[in-house]
Amino acid sequence: REMRRIAVDAARIEKAGHRHFMAKEIHEQPQTLSDVLAAYLDGDRVAPPVDHDFAAADRVVMVACGTANFACSVAKYWFEGLARMPVDVDIASEYRYREGPVSPASTALFVSQSGETADTLAALRYARGKAAAIVSVVNVTTSSIARESDVALPILAGVEVGVASTKAFVNQLAVLLCLAIRAGVQRGVIDSEREAALVAGLRRLPGLMSQAMAIETRCEELASRLAEASDVLFLGRGLMFPMAHEGALKLKEISYIHAEAYASGELKHGPIALVDRTLPVVVLAPTDALFDKTVSNMQEVMAREGQVLLVTDSEGAARASEGVWQTLVMPAIDPLMAPILYAVPAQLLAYHTAVHKGTDVDQPRNLAKSVTVE
Amino acid sequence: REMRRIAVDAARIEKAGHRHFMAKEIHEQPQTLSDVLAAYLDGDRVAPPVDHDFAAADRVVMVACGTANFACSVAKYWFEGLARMPVDVDIASEYRYREGPVSPASTALFVSQSGETADTLAALRYARGKAAAIVSVVNVTTSSIARESDVALPILAGVEVGVASTKAFVNQLAVLLCLAIRAGVQRGVIDSEREAALVAGLRRLPGLMSQAMAIETRCEELASRLAEASDVLFLGRGLMFPMAHEGALKLKEISYIHAEAYASGELKHGPIALVDRTLPVVVLAPTDALFDKTVSNMQEVMAREGQVLLVTDSEGAARASEGVWQTLVMPAIDPLMAPILYAVPAQLLAYHTAVHKGTDVDQPRNLAKSVTVE
Repeated sequence: REMRRIAVDAARIEKAGHRHFMAKEIHEQPQTLSDVLAAYLDGDRVAPPVDHDFAAADRVVMVACGTANFACSVAKYWFEGLARMPVDVDIASEYRYREGPVSPASTALFVSQSGETADTLAALRYARGKAAAIVSVVNVTTSSIARESDVALPILAGVEVGVASTKAFVNQLAVLLCLAIRAGVQRGVIDSEREAALVAGLRRLPGLMSQAMAIETRCEELASRLAEASDVLFLGRGLMFPMAHEGALKLKEISYIHAEAYASGELKHGPIALVDRTLPVVVLAPTDALFDKTVSNMQEVMAREGQVLLVTDSEGAARASEGVWQTLVMPAIDPLMAPILYAVPAQLLAYHTAVHKGTDVDQPRNLAKSVTVE
Repeated sequence: REMRRIAVDAARIEKAGHRHFMAKEIHEQPQTLSDVLAAYLDGDRVAPPVDHDFAAADRVVMVACGTANFACSVAKYWFEGLARMPVDVDIASEYRYREGPVSPASTALFVSQSGETADTLAALRYARGKAAAIVSVVNVTTSSIARESDVALPILAGVEVGVASTKAFVNQLAVLLCLAIRAGVQRGVIDSEREAALVAGLRRLPGLMSQAMAIETRCEELASRLAEASDVLFLGRGLMFPMAHEGALKLKEISYIHAEAYASGELKHGPIALVDRTLPVVVLAPTDALFDKTVSNMQEVMAREGQVLLVTDSEGAARASEGVWQTLVMPAIDPLMAPILYAVPAQLLAYHTAVHKGTDVDQPRNLAKSVTVE
């Protein structure tokens, strides 16, 4: 008994006063994000700790599993927009067995927190010798994936204990955004003025993320309602589409609620049939070029009595919150960088819903932190 | 009253004795599939009514919405495997607004039953002038998408009335498989012997599809159980992954059950947290090179008391049906062509579940046949 009590106390200390590792890791994010940016930025330039030449590549193939795969899907938009570089994103377990053609001039990029994800490692081995270069983005730099890469880029998130990834996901995004900017510079798409502006935006991110934590009280209130739902939809367009996937996955993983993500524009091609007054629909919509389109889809949901939880900034809330069930107001941000900030509501909604339901947040049923078998 | 009665009788005749257009259209498939193959095959060669030169293209970008998008995802595996040609698949509403780079040597291919899908048409217009050629695969050959394409290929499915696509989807697959084979021949990947063998396989498809209809009685029995479920998962690997998407979408569209598809290999990265004894999990697994991998994922579901409905052939049933909740036995088929056949269980399970629930099968709530607005 004495022994046991000491262990519990140690765990409490490790959780830094938080009830769960996941809560601790969510709140660490302004700091861990700041840490990784310090390593990837130099003055008003992006300078990754190891420099990979994206100018020589004809395209980037990004392969990962789970949450890391959603980080790649966000990065596809970044690389295509900032570096005009085509990107293919694939699920590792599909990529490795499909054995598709690999362009010999391509960069193959693998993302894994542990660096030991079995399918991702097998995918890397498939690409080895076929792609021009193997780049990996990992948290554990001594891992198999890091060791077998030509370039291994650290995400510097520190140890992540919660099975549902939070700070590792955010730092994967930060590293991938830095790489996309770097690729844009290397390929002559981004000039030094634009690079400096982007870097200034990156440097504001940790502060904005601290501010975003202010939504926690509202998330806690909403959680009691979300916890009653058996199903939830997450909608987003563009950069918010993979973030909708991340939001749905987080909720699914720790609260066991069947959450699913859809591109807003696909709503009418099927999932809108599910919508009725019992269905909460989380809409991720910072004010950006696609805002009105997303709002139009949101209004279709409301016309069918779906309960919309709109996550937006104060401008978006002023423009579109009429008739929605709830609004979560986030700090205003450059739309390009919004995914990094909008990870926070995805995490906090899932976390507090799970806490309300009383599930084992840090060790959800059936899941392992690192999937080292197929 | 007299007028009304005549109208009802006319509708009955149009349904050819079936209770719904969807049932009629499912049962027409051996015939409509035979029709399209007659137009795309010539002796032991593939000869599309209009020949597009895929040899000149560096890659194919396929863009569509909803079910047609899943047909593209199947076709990606076919083009990559049969023609060693890289394929990008995109959701039309995402593609048009992302405005990603388009390779000037690429073929852009658009799939739409109606040929009027607003987002797909807008995506086509974005690609026009950027890609080397615009190819479309449509049912309505007088449509806007057909008219604005360099090459418009008909799927010859006849009029489809049911909002949930059935015979149009199967014929989209058939046309795309013919195009992949043709591309393989043009690019020197497929020799005449292999082409003849593939064409022989295609010619067996309508007969196999007739045989597959024999599962209908079992689907009817299972429907009473599926109708009680609030959520269903569909799993598949490789070619069966997009088919899992199609199965989930069909069920969602007409029975309003929240069905979701996952690549079997992604199960451990999140969705397995949802699995308990109340969750039916439909596993699409013809005996192919990935069969054992899929079965291994299926066993993880069973270990968590998930109720597995295994859809496989008699060899697969003999090897893996121990401990599963139910097995649906399909005719044996060349794994490459299995998606065309496995559309049938996807359709019949959804149809009978919806009939059991008493929903409006041909006109599901909130959905339109052709989405001509954004």
